[in-house]
Amino acid sequence: MPKVRLALAQTNPVVGDIGANTDQAFEAVKSAAENGANLVLFGEMAITGYPIEDLAARESFIMAAASAVTTLATRLEHAGFGKIAVVIGHPALAPERDSHGWAIAQNCASVLLGGKITGTYAKHHLPNYSVFDEYRIFVPGNDLLSFEFQGLKFSTLICEDIWQSGGPVAQLADSKTDVVLVLNGSPFEIDKDDKRQQLVRELAVNNTAAVAYVNLVGGQDDLVFDGDSLLVDAAGKLIGRAKQFETDLIVFDIESKNKIEMVGEPRISKNDDNEQVWNALVLCLRDYVNKNGFKSVVLGLSGGIDSAVCASIAADAIGAERVFGVSMPSRYSSKHSRSDAEDLADRIGLHFRTEPIESMVNAFESQLGLDGIAAENLQARMRGVILMGLSNAEGHLTLTTGNKTELAVGYSTIYGDSVGGFAPIKDVEKTLVWELAKWRNEFATANGQTPPIPENSITKPPSAELRPDQTDQDSLPEYELLDDLLDNYVEKRLGRDEIVALGFDAEIVDRIIGLVDRAEWKRRQGAIGPKITGMAFGRDRRLPITNRSHK
Amino acid sequence: MPKVRLALAQTNPVVGDIGANTDQAFEAVKSAAENGANLVLFGEMAITGYPIEDLAARESFIMAAASAVTTLATRLEHAGFGKIAVVIGHPALAPERDSHGWAIAQNCASVLLGGKITGTYAKHHLPNYSVFDEYRIFVPGNDLLSFEFQGLKFSTLICEDIWQSGGPVAQLADSKTDVVLVLNGSPFEIDKDDKRQQLVRELAVNNTAAVAYVNLVGGQDDLVFDGDSLLVDAAGKLIGRAKQFETDLIVFDIESKNKIEMVGEPRISKNDDNEQVWNALVLCLRDYVNKNGFKSVVLGLSGGIDSAVCASIAADAIGAERVFGVSMPSRYSSKHSRSDAEDLADRIGLHFRTEPIESMVNAFESQLGLDGIAAENLQARMRGVILMGLSNAEGHLTLTTGNKTELAVGYSTIYGDSVGGFAPIKDVEKTLVWELAKWRNEFATANGQTPPIPENSITKPPSAELRPDQTDQDSLPEYELLDDLLDNYVEKRLGRDEIVALGFDAEIVDRIIGLVDRAEWKRRQGAIGPKITGMAFGRDRRLPITNRSHK
Repeated sequence: MPKVRLALAQTNPVVGDIGANTDQAFEAVKSAAENGANLVLFGEMAITGYPIEDLAARESFIMAAASAVTTLATRLEHAGFGKIAVVIGHPALAPERDSHGWAIAQNCASVLLGGKITGTYAKHHLPNYSVFDEYRIFVPGNDLLSFEFQGLKFSTLICEDIWQSGGPVAQLADSKTDVVLVLNGSPFEIDKDDKRQQLVRELAVNNTAAVAYVNLVGGQDDLVFDGDSLLVDAAGKLIGRAKQFETDLIVFDIESKNKIEMVGEPRISKNDDNEQVWNALVLCLRDYVNKNGFKSVVLGLSGGIDSAVCASIAADAIGAERVFGVSMPSRYSSKHSRSDAEDLADRIGLHFRTEPIESMVNAFESQLGLDGIAAENLQARMRGVILMGLSNAEGHLTLTTGNKTELAVGYSTIYGDSVGGFAPIKDVEKTLVWELAKWRNEFATANGQTPPIPENSITKPPSAELRPDQTDQDSLPEYELLDDLLDNYVEKRLGRDEIVALGFDAEIVDRIIGLVDRAEWKRRQGAIGPKITGMAFGRDRRLPITNRSHK
Repeated sequence: MPKVRLALAQTNPVVGDIGANTDQAFEAVKSAAENGANLVLFGEMAITGYPIEDLAARESFIMAAASAVTTLATRLEHAGFGKIAVVIGHPALAPERDSHGWAIAQNCASVLLGGKITGTYAKHHLPNYSVFDEYRIFVPGNDLLSFEFQGLKFSTLICEDIWQSGGPVAQLADSKTDVVLVLNGSPFEIDKDDKRQQLVRELAVNNTAAVAYVNLVGGQDDLVFDGDSLLVDAAGKLIGRAKQFETDLIVFDIESKNKIEMVGEPRISKNDDNEQVWNALVLCLRDYVNKNGFKSVVLGLSGGIDSAVCASIAADAIGAERVFGVSMPSRYSSKHSRSDAEDLADRIGLHFRTEPIESMVNAFESQLGLDGIAAENLQARMRGVILMGLSNAEGHLTLTTGNKTELAVGYSTIYGDSVGGFAPIKDVEKTLVWELAKWRNEFATANGQTPPIPENSITKPPSAELRPDQTDQDSLPEYELLDDLLDNYVEKRLGRDEIVALGFDAEIVDRIIGLVDRAEWKRRQGAIGPKITGMAFGRDRRLPITNRSHK
């Protein structure tokens, strides 16, 4: 008989929905109890969802969250689970407000036992870089929380605490902790899973303690929490990990910090990068649609690669029967743009309709007499109005199909192809869009399904088809080069001279930087897309702001 | 002969334009020299503008800014100003990066003398609440910088340092400082000028030192820096203040910390609140237009109060000859909506044209057959497409005329009346829109000008005119009540029960909270306006995020 049977509860909370999240936690404890567990660990802020943004500054919300934890303790006791120790994340009012009165809450983990809260830890390191804004909304805590349970010593930490040195981590060394319990809200990034595992192993080895790491799972606006909770023993050996991109409950028998076994089949391996990225995009869209209560999505199908990939993600996320595709041909639309769109719809099995834009374009042109870029934008806007009209009339969430590359260089029309509430591939550069399309088709073939994306949409030269014989490369360099440059300028934040020093042609560097800065200017005029919600891989959420004199 | 003649240089830098800002600083020192000054104090980040947002994470940008300060020192020396001490704000690379590598810079003030940088101070308290995000991008400094000059002792602080206790302010007490030099980027808020003066006086009295407080001036996206630089002596007495909402250079003779005189006419009094708010809105729009290089603005004129106030602000900001108004009547437009719009255009003298939307609405309706809200939104979107078509064809910046109240409750159409790059009254609640309209007309009358806003636009019941005989109060409560409730829910962040406890009717509270939360949901669908740039009074920039279970 092991001393402790520990369950890692990888739940998918909805930000703000305290009632449903608490129910979810109760069900997870029940399920853990059925598996014989006597200790259950949840993720960061499992009671409120994460991130709660400025809800943290709303006192009534924080009090409701803290009160839900007390109620959960009582409810567990009444249901006969009072002997199970539960460690769960939630916000609580800080003992003292900071002087400007904005941050009033702490990011906490409480221990529930015997119908009561027996201890509470407050996160010390508050991340405030990249996608995180915690220093803005939380007051830091300072002390490690340790407790004895069934003859073993446990200590709690929250997420960023293990990514920084100092603070409670430094207190671990002398604490004689057997198992460190870490609650996390750690968003998916490409290759981040390897970093996390490395970090957890180091924490274990440096403190000679086992480490149980629970992450949330689920999409929340721009973020995807990928789960992948794991446990390593005091020697740093990976004992088992939970599923990625799904809710899960995994159970371990702990005899001592060096003697731990996973109950059931241990999962150790991971999917390849493209599959992980695809699953992240699918989960992000699914949870945005379902958590916000939308029944269906609508998107324009141009026959091109971007809309094909978006439709395919949507069908994987919520089922083809909830996806509505609209082909909106103009006088400049090629024959293949219509046939490729239809082919896509057939392959996926989504709802399909055709709404030509000619008569609307004519009505505007005869009154306003626009030409050049203004006339090109007009066509895109007619399509935007059609999609939003269908959204308003039939209740669909509108999807925007623009990719990260075209958003960065301003290759889209505001209130045109950029309309919509969610942009599935807004953080996916064009070269990765192609790669994912090929991966998804190969995956289908390997699994005996019809490849969703028409081969022609993958191989034909990309075009906006807003004037005769237009292709993207009339105004943009080849996408491989473009994505490489954008990575250096936007993601790595290198300056013009630094990029040229890497061996890029100075003229092209100047041209691309000019496009990015000009795109920002056009956003300021209202001429290309505003920032809207969509998947972001924990990378730079903001494009550079206008930067006239310095490149 | 006083020991020191101090000039407070209240400049209006452009974010990112290091070259132009440095030129501006040079010219200010030259002008100070012509006034006999031997010490010149600038505002926070005068070299780069403020806030620099994520430009702070771009190493090449920070190095360019630091290098501009060195160059400025040399240039001043070569121009014969080497004996003038100059204290100016700029970013510089931090001695050590923080562990996540995001914040690499410090928010600094350097002393320039004899062609060299003789000392540099790094801001200690980094505000990260409300409109501020400094903890995200800067590494804090720790030590007070003091220097002797002409027999007096000076110490430097930056902005937030004086709003918080501890840090370098605590070091002031023992420093024997005669004059504290405070560099600020302090955005305008209603009544903030009184708070600032109080704070500066307390700083002076508590440390028995005179305090020179220089603020930036100018609009930068959502923010307006209002200038209003000031100087108090060691007894806390206000000796003089600079202009509000304009660049300025004021000069003081300092014999000792207790004996200071302003050179020229001291300005002590302030304008009333409505005039300050109006001037802030005007400056914000003017600088957005000019700093981003727009030649003109275009906006829809409905005959209603919101578009009338926006047009009037625009004309005050950039001159009526740069303002283009468009009346876009539909089948539901009343006669007065056209005549009031024309009357407004005549009074202000702006460019005016009429573009009926009937034929475009018909083209869409005959193809899509929309009704209800979808048909109402369609009309607003035809107007949006017309404005953006004119913007693209003629190069205007499009103004969005929505007010804070309707944005909060979702009373607008995304891609319709919400199109545009700048929203002049997005942070002005409806009741304040009326108050400002009346104030502006009275101000005109008092100054012998034509009141710009037609009386009928002020007095008639507000209506969107998207269906027959519609008024705002068909779907919204009276605006006085609505604004009062929104202030409690959005600004003061009170919960449902707290608001009811204030004496509001529970049913109305639930209805309004439902509207606000529903508006956030509609934003998620893409059904009402995304966040766009416009004036914010340093209050809550974000509306509450979706909050299903908790009210």
